[in-house]
Amino acid sequence: MPVGTQATVKGVPQDVLEDLGVEILLGNTYHLYLRPGVEQIRTIGGLHRFMAWPRAILTDSGGFQVFSLNELRKVTEEGVEFRSHLDGSSHFLSPESAIEAQIWLGADIIMAFDECTEYPADRARARESMELTLRWAERCKQHFEAHKHEVPWRLDPSSADTTGEFQALFGIVQGGMDRALRRESAERTIAIGFPGYAIGGLSVGEPRPQTREVVEATIEYLPKDKPRYLMGVGTPEEIVEYSKLGIDMMDCVLPTRAARHGLLFTSEGRISIKQARYAGDQGPLDPTCACRVCQRYSRAYLRHLYASNEVLAQTLNTVHNLRFYLDTMRQVRHSIELG
Amino acid sequence: MPVGTQATVKGVPQDVLEDLGVEILLGNTYHLYLRPGVEQIRTIGGLHRFMAWPRAILTDSGGFQVFSLNELRKVTEEGVEFRSHLDGSSHFLSPESAIEAQIWLGADIIMAFDECTEYPADRARARESMELTLRWAERCKQHFEAHKHEVPWRLDPSSADTTGEFQALFGIVQGGMDRALRRESAERTIAIGFPGYAIGGLSVGEPRPQTREVVEATIEYLPKDKPRYLMGVGTPEEIVEYSKLGIDMMDCVLPTRAARHGLLFTSEGRISIKQARYAGDQGPLDPTCACRVCQRYSRAYLRHLYASNEVLAQTLNTVHNLRFYLDTMRQVRHSIELG
Repeated sequence: MPVGTQATVKGVPQDVLEDLGVEILLGNTYHLYLRPGVEQIRTIGGLHRFMAWPRAILTDSGGFQVFSLNELRKVTEEGVEFRSHLDGSSHFLSPESAIEAQIWLGADIIMAFDECTEYPADRARARESMELTLRWAERCKQHFEAHKHEVPWRLDPSSADTTGEFQALFGIVQGGMDRALRRESAERTIAIGFPGYAIGGLSVGEPRPQTREVVEATIEYLPKDKPRYLMGVGTPEEIVEYSKLGIDMMDCVLPTRAARHGLLFTSEGRISIKQARYAGDQGPLDPTCACRVCQRYSRAYLRHLYASNEVLAQTLNTVHNLRFYLDTMRQVRHSIELG
Repeated sequence: MPVGTQATVKGVPQDVLEDLGVEILLGNTYHLYLRPGVEQIRTIGGLHRFMAWPRAILTDSGGFQVFSLNELRKVTEEGVEFRSHLDGSSHFLSPESAIEAQIWLGADIIMAFDECTEYPADRARARESMELTLRWAERCKQHFEAHKHEVPWRLDPSSADTTGEFQALFGIVQGGMDRALRRESAERTIAIGFPGYAIGGLSVGEPRPQTREVVEATIEYLPKDKPRYLMGVGTPEEIVEYSKLGIDMMDCVLPTRAARHGLLFTSEGRISIKQARYAGDQGPLDPTCACRVCQRYSRAYLRHLYASNEVLAQTLNTVHNLRFYLDTMRQVRHSIELG
């Protein structure tokens, strides 16, 4: 899933995303909550209509972003008090208000409000954090069941760009890096009951082999007949690796953020387009790529745009990297179909 | 003509420019000379190939930009010594080197290297400046005739994206705000002989009625059977006004620069999309516009993108403003056809 933090995949118009074959993208509740505000988006009929995107959307709960604020937040049983990174204003997110915000945004898939356990964390701290996430998961589900009718596209059917009857609320497994806690978190989250399950609390600074170890230790306890979503992962190699383990969904800022820094993924490896060696290179970025960037522009031109701080560099680089990721996942799906 | 200073119309991919119906765009020799360098572009086969733009291109001579550097430049009979705005390095542009640079860039239409007379200037100063421009025009033509075979698309026919046998070198009329000098400049420039004539030295700070007065005083001495190009103009109202006077070509950064500042041209007048009043406005930017922005996105979304500093704001705003300008010129042409 490409990341569209502020209701836009940075620099790429929606019709280009459609052409690329993007079927679902991720929006960040924290950012949309602060600007333009969820009430504003609800009034307009929800996020699909607001950003003119008829395909699927998943919103995170805002939890991860709020926990990333570090000194600007305070966690209690009730929820998280935090200060806006934009203007320092005070806000409070609870399981209930995070679900309310996501119902108002009206994405197809929404996420439980969890505490992303920090890394490193000892076993006692990881358990405490996991227990809080489990209590919050219960509250999320209760609030969702009581208010799921209030999603904008049910109140105003003309704004319905989704085929689901209601939104799908996914649960999130935590437990730090502890295998036993991960198993317990998975089993108790499943006991609450959700239509899909995410593995959270990874890509938080731990070594990559440990990420894989925890995913393996968690996924075996997740039901195979429901979507399994690994949050915040990863490189092209990692998305293939985790697909093999049974992960169905992933999101990562890497393809889009790397593109903005001139780091491009190609069939021949990674290219840092800012390098002087590309100044006279008339070849395409990736000779095997069918994207509109590789079909039209040379490395020399892309290097010039980047070196000249032209925003078109960002657009073209992002289009290519997204195509590389989507092609990678198409190959994964093809391999699965072939057994 | 949309302005594509650094071999890109800021934020808009070339296929979108094609869809908009852009038939010709302007590149700035000064900027391309400094970065990536005209030798680099020549090696690649010229500007058309470099920026993957098969339609027409016009390059300015670099003169206007160099004169805009003020304290960073020194004018002599030979040419202009100036310092780069990028790194302060010293450079020298003469009629010969400006033509050489433009031959190497390989645009379809190239411009004589002139001195853009400052505003205000007294009659003596305007004459002195005009005489220099006339001497430079002679030198430009001589250098062009001696070297026109060196254009990249003649040396390497596979890079030919133009149908012209050679580039077309246009002369530029100066003369400050003085009607008699403008007439003299026009007549003596025509005597040198060019396939097209530009009116330069306007939009340099003079009151708008004076611009019109000088255009009227100049255009009557320009041949009707050759393109008449008014440089650096103007607003949507002005391009209609000057078309009526007989101007065939104009260029201006206004539609693209204004777009980047959230100023949008619509059939209902100008809109500053940053205003809070548009935050909940679900209507299109311009209800009568057929561009892909007005067809898909709401004012509320465009306002959100702008307020959030998203680069997609720049792309979408620019696409709309260019469409508005191109539609305006289409209407002008249609009116001319109808007599």
